[in-house]
Amino acid sequence: MPQIDATRLLKDLYAVREIGRYKTGVHRPTFSPQDVEARHWLVGRLREAGLDASIDGIGNVYGLDSRPGRKLLLGSHLETQNHAGWLDGVMGVIYGLEIARTLSGGIDVASWADEEGHFGSFIGSRSFCDLLTEQEIDDCHNRSSGQSLRDALHEAGFAGLPRRVIDPARYQGYIEAHIEQGQDLEDHHLRVGVVTAIVGSRRFRIDFKGQQNHAGTTRMAIRKDAGVALVKLVARIEEEFPKLAGPRTVWTTGDIRLDPGAPSIVPGAAELTFQFRDTDPMILDRLEACLNRLVSEAGKGPCSVEIAYRSETAPAAMDPGLRAALRKAADARAPGLHQEMPSGAGHDAQILSRRLPSAMLFVPSIGGISHHYTENTSDEDIVLGCQVMADACAALLG
Amino acid sequence: MPQIDATRLLKDLYAVREIGRYKTGVHRPTFSPQDVEARHWLVGRLREAGLDASIDGIGNVYGLDSRPGRKLLLGSHLETQNHAGWLDGVMGVIYGLEIARTLSGGIDVASWADEEGHFGSFIGSRSFCDLLTEQEIDDCHNRSSGQSLRDALHEAGFAGLPRRVIDPARYQGYIEAHIEQGQDLEDHHLRVGVVTAIVGSRRFRIDFKGQQNHAGTTRMAIRKDAGVALVKLVARIEEEFPKLAGPRTVWTTGDIRLDPGAPSIVPGAAELTFQFRDTDPMILDRLEACLNRLVSEAGKGPCSVEIAYRSETAPAAMDPGLRAALRKAADARAPGLHQEMPSGAGHDAQILSRRLPSAMLFVPSIGGISHHYTENTSDEDIVLGCQVMADACAALLG
Repeated sequence: MPQIDATRLLKDLYAVREIGRYKTGVHRPTFSPQDVEARHWLVGRLREAGLDASIDGIGNVYGLDSRPGRKLLLGSHLETQNHAGWLDGVMGVIYGLEIARTLSGGIDVASWADEEGHFGSFIGSRSFCDLLTEQEIDDCHNRSSGQSLRDALHEAGFAGLPRRVIDPARYQGYIEAHIEQGQDLEDHHLRVGVVTAIVGSRRFRIDFKGQQNHAGTTRMAIRKDAGVALVKLVARIEEEFPKLAGPRTVWTTGDIRLDPGAPSIVPGAAELTFQFRDTDPMILDRLEACLNRLVSEAGKGPCSVEIAYRSETAPAAMDPGLRAALRKAADARAPGLHQEMPSGAGHDAQILSRRLPSAMLFVPSIGGISHHYTENTSDEDIVLGCQVMADACAALLG
Repeated sequence: MPQIDATRLLKDLYAVREIGRYKTGVHRPTFSPQDVEARHWLVGRLREAGLDASIDGIGNVYGLDSRPGRKLLLGSHLETQNHAGWLDGVMGVIYGLEIARTLSGGIDVASWADEEGHFGSFIGSRSFCDLLTEQEIDDCHNRSSGQSLRDALHEAGFAGLPRRVIDPARYQGYIEAHIEQGQDLEDHHLRVGVVTAIVGSRRFRIDFKGQQNHAGTTRMAIRKDAGVALVKLVARIEEEFPKLAGPRTVWTTGDIRLDPGAPSIVPGAAELTFQFRDTDPMILDRLEACLNRLVSEAGKGPCSVEIAYRSETAPAAMDPGLRAALRKAADARAPGLHQEMPSGAGHDAQILSRRLPSAMLFVPSIGGISHHYTENTSDEDIVLGCQVMADACAALLG
């Protein structure tokens, strides 16, 4: 059995944490100076590991094993959410590096650009999977600063480089390790999760139009209050969705905006940001049918209502063969302390799964916290997760 | 019977509209260059009318009749909301000017500073009624620009002037004419409203604290979703308030804010801006008791809830004698086309009523529109309202 070097693994994780450190976490948005520095740091570490390392025209970092034979592709992402945790993404990349160093060949490593969506939606992994057009790159802008993706790539020094595209024949599959970002493992005192499927999500924007009026002089009977119409729809969703949901379905009203949002004005317009997620497309379908029915009911009130898709991702099933290898390795290293589970969050593996057999391994998030600088996982769990993944890779590569 | 000069009245109203004109309305926020120009314009017109005109240290404009005898005080305000209507406030001031010109003495005219609340709450009329401290003036800032009231008064040239304070013995009472800002007169094909009382309002901010979490990985069962808690409270208010409301009670959720308000984050905090209004203090009391009960019920859910007063105004009853004079005059000039009605909006008359017998006369707002540049009233209704008020003043002054 291969044996990873726990000290080396943790030392590298600690080293990346210093690039853009914020309290106990990291602030390293996509293509910020810190993010670019981290990408170059990774190139150096991949080269030290004997891999053929480079950055491509979308900012993806690759470390390729130039020896013959089919490979496993391991990876995740280096950039972070704003003022976020030190392991989200990074851990999966450094697992790849450590496993490449541990095994005698067969491992390619990738760090996908902008999984965190500062500029777009999975642009790095979609570029590699030939699912990203030049037109879409033209259209992407930073969600905070408004900077165009083209400008950011230029500033980072990646503009003009070719974009690497997958050769599926090269790979047995793709495996991504990640922190759980929930507290299911912790609640059940488990140490490893093997992902069955990544949830699909459907995201909507629902707009209400009523009539803006003076909150003192407009009688209740003649109001067309867009805010109240919105509230009543959300309340109905909260009544109806539990009847149709599966055990892991989640739905979220992420934002509500009333226009003009002043204390003494009856809102004339209102906007709702809503999404739901599940691994089962049939559940997603029946929730969407229910949502459309409730929106239609809401439209019979004094306000008009319009629903629009913002985005949709299909559930992504993980590969049974890869999952079995991960389960077997977990059972050997942590008997009785692992489980199969869905991923409620999106990951690059959902993109890669459209081209390659794909799998994911989770380690526990302390308190379920993520996207916050207090995000953490115990060193013991970090090391165990990497060892389990190394064992599974060795077995798969035969 | 006195006869107002309709042409002169409308000419003055058209003239003020040009100071800060915006489309068919006006943009003349308190102490903007346009507002200061309008105040000086008014001083000139009051002097032409033979009144002793001046501006005081809070920006109020006065035109005082120096002849002996008890007076009626007529007024309203010259400044406007942003990009608002041409009559809101101005009409009542120009009515005062026209009636002073029409009657042979007995009329003082006032234009109160900042009824529209750019800096504070009724600071002009409260200053005149000796209800505004120097400390409060120190604390007031422009709600848009943040400029201090002291700075604004200095720039306007009013700093250092004495603030005039009411001598109640001088006056029989205060009468304010205003556009209705609702559509009750229009709906009932009426032309004049005599106000019975100005509604009291109670304004609240309600804060919800839950736990911010990832919208994909956090199971529904363990969520503490501050946004859902807020929505459920508003839905409960909409169920319960109609059972307790009077025929004219209004309640309004003016704003909702979710924190952080992102599509894929379970809101950890939420904030609700809520108010209700009625002329009956007992109705206000039972609505507040109901609100407190619903907030307390909401606090039994997964989120904590805190309710805080933002402000409160008491209902202000209008004086029966002044009302009777207005009714009698309306019946003579527009038989069957007037009604008594409450004012759903706040007005300077609610402040003056704490020192003097006070009354208000309403003219119809076309389509009920106010606080918008399309606000309007027909010239015929403008002229009729002024004539009715002039008749009532003549009768009261004997």
